[in-house]
Amino acid sequence: MYTPKNIILIVILIFGTNSLLSQENIATKLGYPADSKLLIIHADDLGVSHSENIATFKAIEKGFVNSASIMMPTPWVLEAIAYAKANPDTHDFGLHLVLSSEWKHYKWGPVSSIDKVPSLIDENGYFHEACRTNLNLDEVETELKAQVNRAYAMGFEPTHLDTHMGCVLQTKELTELYLKIGQMYHLPVLVVKQLLTPELKNKYNVRGVVDYFYNLTPETYDKGTEAYYANVLENLKPGLSYFSIHTAYDSDEMKGMTIDHPDWGSEWRQKDFDYFTSKTCKELLEKENIKLVTWRQIKAVYY
Amino acid sequence: MYTPKNIILIVILIFGTNSLLSQENIATKLGYPADSKLLIIHADDLGVSHSENIATFKAIEKGFVNSASIMMPTPWVLEAIAYAKANPDTHDFGLHLVLSSEWKHYKWGPVSSIDKVPSLIDENGYFHEACRTNLNLDEVETELKAQVNRAYAMGFEPTHLDTHMGCVLQTKELTELYLKIGQMYHLPVLVVKQLLTPELKNKYNVRGVVDYFYNLTPETYDKGTEAYYANVLENLKPGLSYFSIHTAYDSDEMKGMTIDHPDWGSEWRQKDFDYFTSKTCKELLEKENIKLVTWRQIKAVYY
Repeated sequence: MYTPKNIILIVILIFGTNSLLSQENIATKLGYPADSKLLIIHADDLGVSHSENIATFKAIEKGFVNSASIMMPTPWVLEAIAYAKANPDTHDFGLHLVLSSEWKHYKWGPVSSIDKVPSLIDENGYFHEACRTNLNLDEVETELKAQVNRAYAMGFEPTHLDTHMGCVLQTKELTELYLKIGQMYHLPVLVVKQLLTPELKNKYNVRGVVDYFYNLTPETYDKGTEAYYANVLENLKPGLSYFSIHTAYDSDEMKGMTIDHPDWGSEWRQKDFDYFTSKTCKELLEKENIKLVTWRQIKAVYY
Repeated sequence: MYTPKNIILIVILIFGTNSLLSQENIATKLGYPADSKLLIIHADDLGVSHSENIATFKAIEKGFVNSASIMMPTPWVLEAIAYAKANPDTHDFGLHLVLSSEWKHYKWGPVSSIDKVPSLIDENGYFHEACRTNLNLDEVETELKAQVNRAYAMGFEPTHLDTHMGCVLQTKELTELYLKIGQMYHLPVLVVKQLLTPELKNKYNVRGVVDYFYNLTPETYDKGTEAYYANVLENLKPGLSYFSIHTAYDSDEMKGMTIDHPDWGSEWRQKDFDYFTSKTCKELLEKENIKLVTWRQIKAVYY
């Protein structure tokens, strides 16, 4: 249900294949040579569980994760917000906009009042398990703004916006809404070059567009986490690349949370943690002369 | 903030000291000699965390916990409900009615739409941290009914009702509302003899009233969990006694959840688990000829 590859295919079908854009050179804007290999190593899902929080904090402090985003509707969000507020000037802390609650036994629902967003919830008042394309757009806008406003109300200024499970990229209308929210709050949004027509880019004044998006899929995971990431790092192209990863400890809490769902599950997340805190990863980043950059830097030059 | 001893004092002040009632003999109703020592060993807070859930399931299966109650607004409630539905005829599974969200970094809010219950929530839409006496009673009724209705809507029939942190016992009006909800759904409610005037008992037709309520307090905890429980068991009186305990594993999840709050904290709950799964406890229950009874049995004879 998660696979960004599918999302990319869906969006290419919607936008057409003429959406491969050239864009301004981000590297030179950030003070690097024009052909630099820039990389954001981004941990999704902060707030989702204590394990995800403490592993991600560790992966930021001792490893190479330099960007993360927080899910405002989740039970552990206050722990993530407290950490982000205590570390305001270093790495990225954005908002991982949420429209789904995908685990079997562990749930969350909207930040807004549930009677205002009936199309977004299931019979128990939680978000639906999977992304949906038939959501009421006004309700989506109400909820996404509520998530951003809640962050600011907590005294937390996000560095960027991105999307949990790609739910806001499921249709052209949802994608436009996502870009509009970014524009409204003057925040960079994670969007991949392939998914952006010139019209949308101009309409919502999108800057800091990601050239290459990478994440593990069940297929690549089966072949080995380390093999996948090493191969990507060894073949990284000039431009802005983005790793969407999930760092957590393979604890009882995570095993319980991800029960019956090995994809993006507890072991999966432990392996992401292991790789992005490893000496192997460190050496490869250095050997390939990869420049780790942040949304914070992109925001500073473009927003 | 939690201490039932304080609640008892408050309610005695409200109801007066003439509320010590004689009641029908529960022991004979349940088929035991009239002077039997009956005991419910009740684990609170099912649903609050994965650790609390799996430890309590274990304490039911391998230990002497014979009754538990589920917090409908909590993140892990579906895991607790699934277990209760898979084990429908054995131990108690009631509802632990919730009006508070007491931990620092880990939160939940109402089951009902938050714009319908403004007096129940904080600025982030969560329940208040502590019990409050100035809640709007209509909103409390809306929320408590929503919690019970949600349980039934999930196909789960609770055996009884009780109260998280005693929040519904903070005033006479709240107590009446709690008794009214029990009457409305034909469910036994946990209420201690001292807290019940004859008028309230008759008005809400309360049956199965607990004679003696026991729980660890910070003072008794400091003197040793095992010493406290052993002393209570050795001196149990004839009538219906009730242990309110909290069983969880002292895991990272629980340490994170109960951070800055050792009272009712992670180690505290591990010690409850350890005692109520111990050979010492088993032998003492046998030696003292204590009869473990359930709300299920009480419901069967009175409701």
